[in-house]
Amino acid sequence: MTEVSVARARRLAERAAQDELDLLLVTGAVDVRWLTGFTGSSGLAVVGSGGVRRFVTDFRYLVQSAEQLGDDWEREIAQELLAHVAQGLHGRVGFDDGDLSVKQHAALADAVGDDVELVPAGGLVGELRAVKDADEVARIRAATRLADRALEEVLERGLAGRTERDVALDLEMTMRRMGAEGVSFPPIVAAGAHGALPHAEPRDVEIPRGTLCVIDWGAQLDGYASDCTRTFGTGGEVDPRDAEVYELVRVAQEQALAAVRAGVGGREVDAVARDLIAAAGHGEHFGHGLGHGVGAEVHEGPRLSQRSDSVLAAGNVVTVEPGVYVPGAVGVRIEDLAVVTDDGTDVLTSLPKRLRTIDG
Amino acid sequence: MTEVSVARARRLAERAAQDELDLLLVTGAVDVRWLTGFTGSSGLAVVGSGGVRRFVTDFRYLVQSAEQLGDDWEREIAQELLAHVAQGLHGRVGFDDGDLSVKQHAALADAVGDDVELVPAGGLVGELRAVKDADEVARIRAATRLADRALEEVLERGLAGRTERDVALDLEMTMRRMGAEGVSFPPIVAAGAHGALPHAEPRDVEIPRGTLCVIDWGAQLDGYASDCTRTFGTGGEVDPRDAEVYELVRVAQEQALAAVRAGVGGREVDAVARDLIAAAGHGEHFGHGLGHGVGAEVHEGPRLSQRSDSVLAAGNVVTVEPGVYVPGAVGVRIEDLAVVTDDGTDVLTSLPKRLRTIDG
Repeated sequence: MTEVSVARARRLAERAAQDELDLLLVTGAVDVRWLTGFTGSSGLAVVGSGGVRRFVTDFRYLVQSAEQLGDDWEREIAQELLAHVAQGLHGRVGFDDGDLSVKQHAALADAVGDDVELVPAGGLVGELRAVKDADEVARIRAATRLADRALEEVLERGLAGRTERDVALDLEMTMRRMGAEGVSFPPIVAAGAHGALPHAEPRDVEIPRGTLCVIDWGAQLDGYASDCTRTFGTGGEVDPRDAEVYELVRVAQEQALAAVRAGVGGREVDAVARDLIAAAGHGEHFGHGLGHGVGAEVHEGPRLSQRSDSVLAAGNVVTVEPGVYVPGAVGVRIEDLAVVTDDGTDVLTSLPKRLRTIDG
Repeated sequence: MTEVSVARARRLAERAAQDELDLLLVTGAVDVRWLTGFTGSSGLAVVGSGGVRRFVTDFRYLVQSAEQLGDDWEREIAQELLAHVAQGLHGRVGFDDGDLSVKQHAALADAVGDDVELVPAGGLVGELRAVKDADEVARIRAATRLADRALEEVLERGLAGRTERDVALDLEMTMRRMGAEGVSFPPIVAAGAHGALPHAEPRDVEIPRGTLCVIDWGAQLDGYASDCTRTFGTGGEVDPRDAEVYELVRVAQEQALAAVRAGVGGREVDAVARDLIAAAGHGEHFGHGLGHGVGAEVHEGPRLSQRSDSVLAAGNVVTVEPGVYVPGAVGVRIEDLAVVTDDGTDVLTSLPKRLRTIDG
């Protein structure tokens, strides 16, 4: 990891210099891990021109930080990380205004010298993180494959007659047994009208036959996340109105996915699915954005939504996940994870998208 | 939940009024859940005198928020929660400076009217949350019992010869199968010298015989957490030096626990264990605080540490967890969870503390 971390620190310092920052303070735990390789919960880093690479953690991580960072970073141990790091700062210092709380910022501002100007500079690490290198894509692909295999195994045990919570727990444990570090987020398993809640929590309620069931899940593997959604028939006849909603979402998903490529705006891609769903009379039933970047975190840049200013770049890894949620009736969401390339996408998700009924 | 939520809102508004606040904006997810009963990831609340109870969430939680909050709160749906809530604010408005980021605060400040003064007021909800009511104690007790039972089941499958990661995963899955919503934190299982890392991550390394193994784990149940640590012998002979460290920590833990009661300072209780450990020559090997409050979050007020300003009150639920960490050699930590009462404690943890060897 250490060569990677030195190269990332250099690129980040260059990016900070573009904003006329002398130093950049990195505080978000995932940013710090991406930058330094440190996996603990308490650490911060400073980068700057001339090869400045400082890392501060607390007593608990004395040994672990030495193992993970080696000699490429100047490592410092302190009780109050921000008060400690303040002592070595000078000039225009960027900080992550999306991460530092008002209280932390006040403590930092109190502790820095008179020659320091603290400048809001959130998002700089996120900009770099949004474009994945080959190793990162390989990790996200591995996480996706593991998650796909786990779902197939769980589906062999059926859906109807099991509770949503049982299926969700089974899915999580199957991923963990297959080697996942954890889940990207608690799996969603939501049948029938419960599927109309986009972020439904699995209930201790049996999944009935003859309806649809939304499953949204992801694995965390080697520090990287996956994210996928499929909606299944639960056995017996599917209500034709439900099947119609399913087909609408499927077509919207495939058309939007086909529109993804480097140079296209996140808003444009969102509109492909949104216009199609609105034209079918379900505009008000698609209340979230089309997708988001996935990497070390399951939600990161770029965004694909009505309010996105992002322009897609090769190396972005994004979800494409339109949904239609009819309150009291049914919900359908279909989601793939894809790497953006110059002329389209490399779709990481391997599961089919035709409506599939699980008899079990 | 709704009667409880109205009563909590009233007490919180009264507490805010003591700081001459007209309104208090509550943004932390766990604070919002404690206050309103809402379990989603995106919501904020405003309370104030005269029975002001506003709740704002986004489209995704339209149905869920109606189910969980009923008519006791004025519910509002918005895309940008802070910009929306700003429109209804007036006078001196407290906000959680430990939760709002610098960026969120700037957005809020931009959106409020000229008649609004934003006042840092973090910790007010935490003050109330630190004193548990009978229902909350019952939930923490239930989480603790579940965690204790889960560990006993896992220990029946032995320690030596299994990897740390396998034991940790087994423990998590056993808790989940027993009905836990999740873990309070990823379980720590750390044998031998690895136990000298207070926040060790379980490794894919077999636990050897003839050493000590630290296990620190907790269950999340009904919205409340548990937290416990035990250190076990792994079979065969225990090195007498390790056994000596164990006895030191055990005595320190029991003496500190005996010092806990309402009216005593968090610093005083910490000193009972710390002085004893220091007198035995291990002062530098106990680098963290003695304990912390546990409730809806596994780390909350009050703190028991060298730098604590807390005075314990009846209804606090705290850990007492001294440790000795000898780098490269061994780590021992013993932790109970206890309710503070007027004349002592009601210890929730049921597991014995004499050094116990797991043969399996």
